[in-house]
Amino acid sequence: MEVKEMKKSRKTLLRTEISWVQPGKILLKGYNLIEMIGRKSFGDMIYLLFSGDLPKGNEGKMIEAILVSSCEHGLATPSTSAARSVASGGVPLQAAVAAGIIGLGDSHGGAIEQCAKMLQENIGEAREKGFEKTAERVIKDYQARKRRIHGYGHGIHAPEDPRKVKLYEYAREIKVTGDCIRFSEAVELKLKELTGKPLPINVDGAIGAVISDLGIHWTFGKGFFLISRAAGLTAHVQEEHAKEPPMRRVYTWDDVDYQGVPERKIP
Amino acid sequence: MEVKEMKKSRKTLLRTEISWVQPGKILLKGYNLIEMIGRKSFGDMIYLLFSGDLPKGNEGKMIEAILVSSCEHGLATPSTSAARSVASGGVPLQAAVAAGIIGLGDSHGGAIEQCAKMLQENIGEAREKGFEKTAERVIKDYQARKRRIHGYGHGIHAPEDPRKVKLYEYAREIKVTGDCIRFSEAVELKLKELTGKPLPINVDGAIGAVISDLGIHWTFGKGFFLISRAAGLTAHVQEEHAKEPPMRRVYTWDDVDYQGVPERKIP
Amino acid sequence: MEVKEMKKSRKTLLRTEISWVQPGKILLKGYNLIEMIGRKSFGDMIYLLFSGDLPKGNEGKMIEAILVSSCEHGLATPSTSAARSVASGGVPLQAAVAAGIIGLGDSHGGAIEQCAKMLQENIGEAREKGFEKTAERVIKDYQARKRRIHGYGHGIHAPEDPRKVKLYEYAREIKVTGDCIRFSEAVELKLKELTGKPLPINVDGAIGAVISDLGIHWTFGKGFFLISRAAGLTAHVQEEHAKEPPMRRVYTWDDVDYQGVPERKIP
Amino acid sequence: MEVKEMKKSRKTLLRTEISWVQPGKILLKGYNLIEMIGRKSFGDMIYLLFSGDLPKGNEGKMIEAILVSSCEHGLATPSTSAARSVASGGVPLQAAVAAGIIGLGDSHGGAIEQCAKMLQENIGEAREKGFEKTAERVIKDYQARKRRIHGYGHGIHAPEDPRKVKLYEYAREIKVTGDCIRFSEAVELKLKELTGKPLPINVDGAIGAVISDLGIHWTFGKGFFLISRAAGLTAHVQEEHAKEPPMRRVYTWDDVDYQGVPERKIP
Repeated sequence: MEVKEMKKSRKTLLRTEISWVQPGKILLKGYNLIEMIGRKSFGDMIYLLFSGDLPKGNEGKMIEAILVSSCEHGLATPSTSAARSVASGGVPLQAAVAAGIIGLGDSHGGAIEQCAKMLQENIGEAREKGFEKTAERVIKDYQARKRRIHGYGHGIHAPEDPRKVKLYEYAREIKVTGDCIRFSEAVELKLKELTGKPLPINVDGAIGAVISDLGIHWTFGKGFFLISRAAGLTAHVQEEHAKEPPMRRVYTWDDVDYQGVPERKIP
Repeated sequence: MEVKEMKKSRKTLLRTEISWVQPGKILLKGYNLIEMIGRKSFGDMIYLLFSGDLPKGNEGKMIEAILVSSCEHGLATPSTSAARSVASGGVPLQAAVAAGIIGLGDSHGGAIEQCAKMLQENIGEAREKGFEKTAERVIKDYQARKRRIHGYGHGIHAPEDPRKVKLYEYAREIKVTGDCIRFSEAVELKLKELTGKPLPINVDGAIGAVISDLGIHWTFGKGFFLISRAAGLTAHVQEEHAKEPPMRRVYTWDDVDYQGVPERKIP
Repeated sequence: MEVKEMKKSRKTLLRTEISWVQPGKILLKGYNLIEMIGRKSFGDMIYLLFSGDLPKGNEGKMIEAILVSSCEHGLATPSTSAARSVASGGVPLQAAVAAGIIGLGDSHGGAIEQCAKMLQENIGEAREKGFEKTAERVIKDYQARKRRIHGYGHGIHAPEDPRKVKLYEYAREIKVTGDCIRFSEAVELKLKELTGKPLPINVDGAIGAVISDLGIHWTFGKGFFLISRAAGLTAHVQEEHAKEPPMRRVYTWDDVDYQGVPERKIP
Repeated sequence: MEVKEMKKSRKTLLRTEISWVQPGKILLKGYNLIEMIGRKSFGDMIYLLFSGDLPKGNEGKMIEAILVSSCEHGLATPSTSAARSVASGGVPLQAAVAAGIIGLGDSHGGAIEQCAKMLQENIGEAREKGFEKTAERVIKDYQARKRRIHGYGHGIHAPEDPRKVKLYEYAREIKVTGDCIRFSEAVELKLKELTGKPLPINVDGAIGAVISDLGIHWTFGKGFFLISRAAGLTAHVQEEHAKEPPMRRVYTWDDVDYQGVPERKIP
């Protein structure tokens, strides 16, 4: 009945299940956002926005841990150097941060989404037919299609990404683990067995597994990374604006190797 | 000594005070980020990134409250409708969210920065010469330059923005208030007195005042809003991808009022 | 020898075949850009950048016609409404235009790339085994994989997109047509035969075919659209800045149909 | 009457003077875009979009020359390195190009707008009171406000930016020059006289002067640069995608000089 009253829309084109605003009230998945200020954490809100309800347990704390793990990774990452370059062109903070966020693509944090997808699509089979057996089937399937399993290996933090170690430890400590983390570990073991080389779960894979156990759909995967990294990018753009000259070049034409056609006459 | 060892750089062009990455270690303002996973909140990390040190008190909690207050404000805000339009073009989540973030400009959250600037630039004088007197001087100065004082009035949430009320209450409750909140209130009173109409502090102004009392430089102002709103934008872009057809138009050419030159012959 | 002299690079990481800058000289694929000002058209430059050499015939003119065809398509397209929304947040022109450009994704102009890819990947077979036969094989292959052939049908400009008609006519008039345009027409005919409904080549498909005959790799496909549309987007953002109030909403919360959970108590 | 018929709008919020779309027709400032394909150049269309009418003379040719002059300036510019960094994160072409375009801010091409503004705001006075006298008044006014006159000096192409030389030569050759170019030269002379050092008009300033003589409002200034540079950025993003590995770093953590707080214990 209350829902009906709320639906005053003339435009079915403008529909959403996320939120609704009235003077003095901002409904978020049914809860008044205003009442949650000071009572809920930002992690709780993200859980609410992405899963549909407020945490029953420590889900919000787990999301906070994820946000901490990814908020900054140095000046030399593609997104950070892009944001700083853009900032140096003389643009407002939010636009330079946005340029960095655009860069958080399939190869730069995208493994969160891909790993979560792999886990969520196969967890049913794993529960039914066994984790090891399903891990083997999945890996061989990926190999047959010549596709990489995202979220494993290739970090600079060898032998294991310490952020992954911490995230899994913490998930166990606060009891938010489930079958997806277990399955991610079964895949890790089987990958080593089948390929002969260690391909440990990296931080992207770990986040993918953790959010899967939190019950969040893989299509939200990149969201965790971009919200988190927005903090580090803001700090870098502010530093660029505050400390560096405009239009600066971190390398010059002399550093560039022109490998194209040598000088020629215009016809 | 340890610092010296760290400085291996050959390029003074690539310098930063924010972070440094080594295998197994991510230094953030001197603290190892990895050790903070599960121990510190995301609010603590933002405080660290923007102020230079970890909270001594409840600063991280206050930042969480700010992030909660601004994470979503409905489908009809310019940034959200932009992000959903872009999403409907068939682009990855992070790029569509970035398009929305670009829109968080001077007129859309920018008052945080402007209000914090006003407070931080005049708080010294207020302490010295009195809050009321300084508020009057500042307002008259803005009026003389025909400039608006940002962060006051104009909300849809009349008579007061309830997010502002909650933020100030919570700041007092957890004891992170200081002179800037007090000065923001002196300006509010004086504005009403001088203009004859109520111009209550809105949510942007409130955030500007709160972060000023947390000791965060006004140039970080937009950062709070963009990090926070990134959560709501992610939810909207995911919903657009999941529930709506591609390339959809929320209005059509028939809704558009063409006010230009009528049809004419090409010369 | 001359090339060798040019290679002063110490960093193989910064390599390019596109251009090289020295004081007084900007080499573009070997030609001095400065000498081309006033002598070459922008279409010629795009041809140079994307194909590797200056036009031998009318290729530059054909590119100009493509740029004309797509430079504007009204206020109601997703990219334009996004750019104007963003502009209304109080952001610089280039950032608002960029937000619109982000939206030129797989469903909004992306068919140029997809159609060009389809043509370029199958034109060899078409030449060898016949256009009709290959068209049939390709369509059935797409149907078997339940994938759409991009660049055909679905326009608002029925029965044929007049921009497509003009582009093909002009390509024939200035003699830059080749097998890809012919093959695109064979696919059109066969599509009608196999599906029973008319799926005429649309403007995206036409551009995809024309650039394929110009010898430009399909990976440049979206470039034509984004360069062209940047002109219309610039005009819209400028108009938004000049004529409309900041932070405006083209629809309000009353227009939004909230279909989510009704109001509930925070636990 | 015809205009009246066109106005079917119910929403005054969706109004524009730019264009209007109907099946089979795209009105652009009154002209049917479809009829202009193959008959008008892209430069003509930009002139139409930005000035309101089709060229009476060589205005379109002049715009083409501007677009040629700025379409590419090497790998080491902030916008290009940003676009390539973003591309390396695994994002679609249009989104990576957009990241580069965001960077075309006040310090990176923004002088076009600023120089055009200065010329357009003072040309009336110059015509009335003399070019030299007005130039002196303007410069002294900027100096008094400690502001730089944009569009002069600071190029890498010393003593004169050859693109500026070509643009002015061409403008004179095709007879599209006017008082703004003359006034820009008066300012150049006076700047040298008053400051004692040569501050020649650079390419940004030259474009600003040329478009002013074409009758285009300075608020469109950045548009010329972004449309033009979109071509070079597209080529760079495509090259990054085609030739380089994903997530590549053009410098590493070893190249970074961490100047922050040395390692410390987490409290």
